[in-house]
Amino acid sequence: MGESIFGMKRTHRCAEINVSNVGQQVTVMGWTQKRRDLGGLIFVDLRDRSGIVQLVFNNEIDSEVFKKAESIRNEYVLAVTGEVVKRDPETINPKLLTGEIEIIAKELRILSTSETPPFYIEEDTDVNEALRLKYRYLDLRRPDMQRNLILRHKIAKIARDYYDQHGFLEIETPMLTKSTPEGARDYLVPSRVHPGKFYALPQSPQLFKQLLMVSGFDRYMQIVKCFRDEDLRADRQPEFTQIDLEMSFVNVEDVLEINEGFIVKVFEEALGIKLETPFIRMPYQEAMDRFGTDKPDIRFGLELVNVSDLVENCGFKVFADAVKNGGSVRAINAKGGGRHFSRREIDSLVEFVKTYRAKGLAWIVVEENELKSPITKFFNDEEIKAILERVAAEPGDLICFVADKNQVVYDALGQLRLEIARKMDLIDESQFKFLWVTEFPLLEYDEEEKRYVAKHHPFTSPMDEDIKYLDTEPEKVRAKAYDIVLNGTEIGGGSIRIHDQALQSKMFKLLGFTEEQAWDRFGFLLEAFKYGTPPHGGLAFGLDRLVMLMARRSSIRDVIAFPKVQNASDLMTGAPDVVEDKQIEELHIKLSGQ
Amino acid sequence: MGESIFGMKRTHRCAEINVSNVGQQVTVMGWTQKRRDLGGLIFVDLRDRSGIVQLVFNNEIDSEVFKKAESIRNEYVLAVTGEVVKRDPETINPKLLTGEIEIIAKELRILSTSETPPFYIEEDTDVNEALRLKYRYLDLRRPDMQRNLILRHKIAKIARDYYDQHGFLEIETPMLTKSTPEGARDYLVPSRVHPGKFYALPQSPQLFKQLLMVSGFDRYMQIVKCFRDEDLRADRQPEFTQIDLEMSFVNVEDVLEINEGFIVKVFEEALGIKLETPFIRMPYQEAMDRFGTDKPDIRFGLELVNVSDLVENCGFKVFADAVKNGGSVRAINAKGGGRHFSRREIDSLVEFVKTYRAKGLAWIVVEENELKSPITKFFNDEEIKAILERVAAEPGDLICFVADKNQVVYDALGQLRLEIARKMDLIDESQFKFLWVTEFPLLEYDEEEKRYVAKHHPFTSPMDEDIKYLDTEPEKVRAKAYDIVLNGTEIGGGSIRIHDQALQSKMFKLLGFTEEQAWDRFGFLLEAFKYGTPPHGGLAFGLDRLVMLMARRSSIRDVIAFPKVQNASDLMTGAPDVVEDKQIEELHIKLSGQ
Repeated sequence: MGESIFGMKRTHRCAEINVSNVGQQVTVMGWTQKRRDLGGLIFVDLRDRSGIVQLVFNNEIDSEVFKKAESIRNEYVLAVTGEVVKRDPETINPKLLTGEIEIIAKELRILSTSETPPFYIEEDTDVNEALRLKYRYLDLRRPDMQRNLILRHKIAKIARDYYDQHGFLEIETPMLTKSTPEGARDYLVPSRVHPGKFYALPQSPQLFKQLLMVSGFDRYMQIVKCFRDEDLRADRQPEFTQIDLEMSFVNVEDVLEINEGFIVKVFEEALGIKLETPFIRMPYQEAMDRFGTDKPDIRFGLELVNVSDLVENCGFKVFADAVKNGGSVRAINAKGGGRHFSRREIDSLVEFVKTYRAKGLAWIVVEENELKSPITKFFNDEEIKAILERVAAEPGDLICFVADKNQVVYDALGQLRLEIARKMDLIDESQFKFLWVTEFPLLEYDEEEKRYVAKHHPFTSPMDEDIKYLDTEPEKVRAKAYDIVLNGTEIGGGSIRIHDQALQSKMFKLLGFTEEQAWDRFGFLLEAFKYGTPPHGGLAFGLDRLVMLMARRSSIRDVIAFPKVQNASDLMTGAPDVVEDKQIEELHIKLSGQ
Repeated sequence: MGESIFGMKRTHRCAEINVSNVGQQVTVMGWTQKRRDLGGLIFVDLRDRSGIVQLVFNNEIDSEVFKKAESIRNEYVLAVTGEVVKRDPETINPKLLTGEIEIIAKELRILSTSETPPFYIEEDTDVNEALRLKYRYLDLRRPDMQRNLILRHKIAKIARDYYDQHGFLEIETPMLTKSTPEGARDYLVPSRVHPGKFYALPQSPQLFKQLLMVSGFDRYMQIVKCFRDEDLRADRQPEFTQIDLEMSFVNVEDVLEINEGFIVKVFEEALGIKLETPFIRMPYQEAMDRFGTDKPDIRFGLELVNVSDLVENCGFKVFADAVKNGGSVRAINAKGGGRHFSRREIDSLVEFVKTYRAKGLAWIVVEENELKSPITKFFNDEEIKAILERVAAEPGDLICFVADKNQVVYDALGQLRLEIARKMDLIDESQFKFLWVTEFPLLEYDEEEKRYVAKHHPFTSPMDEDIKYLDTEPEKVRAKAYDIVLNGTEIGGGSIRIHDQALQSKMFKLLGFTEEQAWDRFGFLLEAFKYGTPPHGGLAFGLDRLVMLMARRSSIRDVIAFPKVQNASDLMTGAPDVVEDKQIEELHIKLSGQ
């Protein structure tokens, strides 16, 4: 290793020492995990990034070193030179990499002492997170947190190697840029040199990476910090990291292929997991119809079944009306759910779907020779027979129905599907199931703003065969947009961009921008498009989420060294904080309070 | 390559095609560099990131494609399929990688048209920089700008590979952090969630990387954006990029070795240049005495010579007084300068040093059998003999003297040395000469603030043997700090940090912080130091400057994709810019004007 300090030179990291080193003299440096005294012997577990090794201080071998060792407490930083010896068979610790050996200490330097830390440094602590974050530098000493950040380093390194090998150039885009209010809220930075003007921190390098394609760089990638001033959810941070990329002269399939290749490589190299390829490509509409969501978890079945055609004229008004009003009636067959769920549990499922705006949940429990259900009485035998056939019902099944506007049916059954899977323990947590969801709608109608908004962003290209609908039925237009979904979580998405000025202007009109507004916000991009724009498209992965899922954690805070909490503050540094008046004045601003 | 668009699939980048492809059918996509018509033939130079290839459209071979080709203008984006053929010997262009071949076009798609660009896309343009920056996406099409950014990508990639191979982990530190006003001015970000409070953008990850050492990560690196709200100089940007790193359990030499290894590797792999190692290690005081600066350009001699002892009792009052008042008299022998410089040129050198606060410049021109000089009359023969001996004067030499306070003498002669070297053309621009400057003073006395300030930063460790002077003669204390200098430019620097709480508190006292101020600003770091801090140190390279020097450019703007100009604005996007009132109100601030 070659480091040396106070004349001692570290020869190994703690857990790099094993039986092959027996008889050698080694020097290790690290933190005291624990100390045990046994008469004339002191045992110290020394910890560094690699793991733990056991040190032995023997009063008979060296009483001076032994005396010094008596002052050692937890988290003291030590430098120790000694001889590696085999442990007695009965003291071998199979849980430790170094469990077969120990180091008989000959020289000891206490490099730094420690007060008693606010919590014990151990794997999978149950200390509350607020305390962990206040003392993050101690929390990060815990082996699981070290593994998470080491894994994050590996994943980022593999990404850079992979895209470099495929001709991508990492090019840095600005952090101090122009506010383009569309999408989330910008973080603003007041300018000292230009009174009354502000920079914005980028929500993504979108415009810049498209300009790099206009510049002819052909293949761009960047692992880059992005910023959104949103009210935080568990899986959101005000600053987050994207693996961001863009390619010229490509179609949708080209982009999916190259990025699928990255996912395969990173799972193989970082986790030793071989993924099946190609990943499924599933159009948005199919995902909604089969799973009720555009980010389906395909580790299990329980797919939605549309029974609208079978019930539109039935005697059950709730079902018939839903269909007549342009909605639908869809079902999930929870195989074996009839036996698994008690009547009370079924009632709780009814309550569950109501939290997703469904008015209710109709159900049928199929038994050997009867049906238990509050709704069968409204149907004639042919209708029941047809429904049970459609959902492939067998004795023991629980059939659940929601009838409503399509979006409500999708949301309610999509969530119910996950809920039933959890309750019936149908999810194999060891699996990583990817798919591409494609052909997203280009536009969404925003009820609040009473206008269409871009589902992905304003530069997303419509599908060639749908362009004809842009003027007449814009809601029908599908986009060359795609998401990559892992176990029901979206970990990335992108699109082929519009490279035609006329089409881009039409798009802005659809979004309710005047020419002037469009130019005011995106003028430099529209100007650039006048001078020869290659067809191009790209994608961005959410690195924090990808690492979280690969590390099998439930919070992205566990894969970020210094994260912020719900209210966007940093419990360790106290940021954000008050600043000196002089600093504020220089920025030509005042606090509203004053 | 595998990209496909409108049914055509790119098979090669333009300059990847050569004689080995003759007879093959290829498809290329790129920008029109120029078009030439010759009767029934149209020649198009097609450009992409790899370079240029010549396309031939032949009316007799395909009149339809030929017709289409007639509409091609500069910067049109084309997709062309055709056959690779050898050029006639007389039309071979040795300047082009592809100069021996051309492509007979069989299929042409105009992917995008272009208006006439505001300037022609060519190597080493003389277009003024403001226009280049307004149309940066076009400026970046120029081959030299493409080379610069490709080189930058390579350098960053090599850095990550090298430090990864040496056990460094890349760990991301926060961009939204706490303002610690010491050093330059912070960029502030008003918080929407916490009225009256602000985040600061980091001037460097200094505190966080030290906390990562407290956490036991052992070896950290990050290529990271940093921010300084300063009035810009030619070589400064409000946002700049550092290769930032930190190591535990190390001394100064360990840090120098590992980073010297990186420099050697990056020059070898990115430029094919083998550097001599080890780089010179030169203590700060030696650098000042020999070169008058702490960032000496050692590609040439012209070293400073101290003659104070020879003149302190001489008859020339200016010299004698300078020494008596604690200053010095130093000389530079410009070998052959006596012949090279006219009297008028020597006078201009006198004016030159005055711009560096020197009251004047004394000089002697040594000729075969006489001395030309305004000052020799003040000296007796022994004194003159001694001086000429000391500076190894020979006929033809020009000896220049400055007498003043030491700092003035250093500045004036240090600059004069560079000026003479330029005028006498002594600098070999093909050379890359590195050295480490070490043992910097720990403190500087700030005349304005009437207090000591840290020369490097408040966490820098004093040299062990100088700690004893901290209370008595702090200005005498040297630090475990170091800079790496390339051809007279500082490209990086760092230090071993204080890891002892008592010493750190003493340091803050010396810097005039009260306990409270210190804790208010750096409390989380001081708190962390209570729980076992390893000895640690690190360094940061200025990536922009390193790339600039390796690309042999004179401005860092030429190695940054989207740089800002002197007044910190972006001429392309118009950032910073006004924002909507709603955005400002949400941040609980008002513009001072209102």
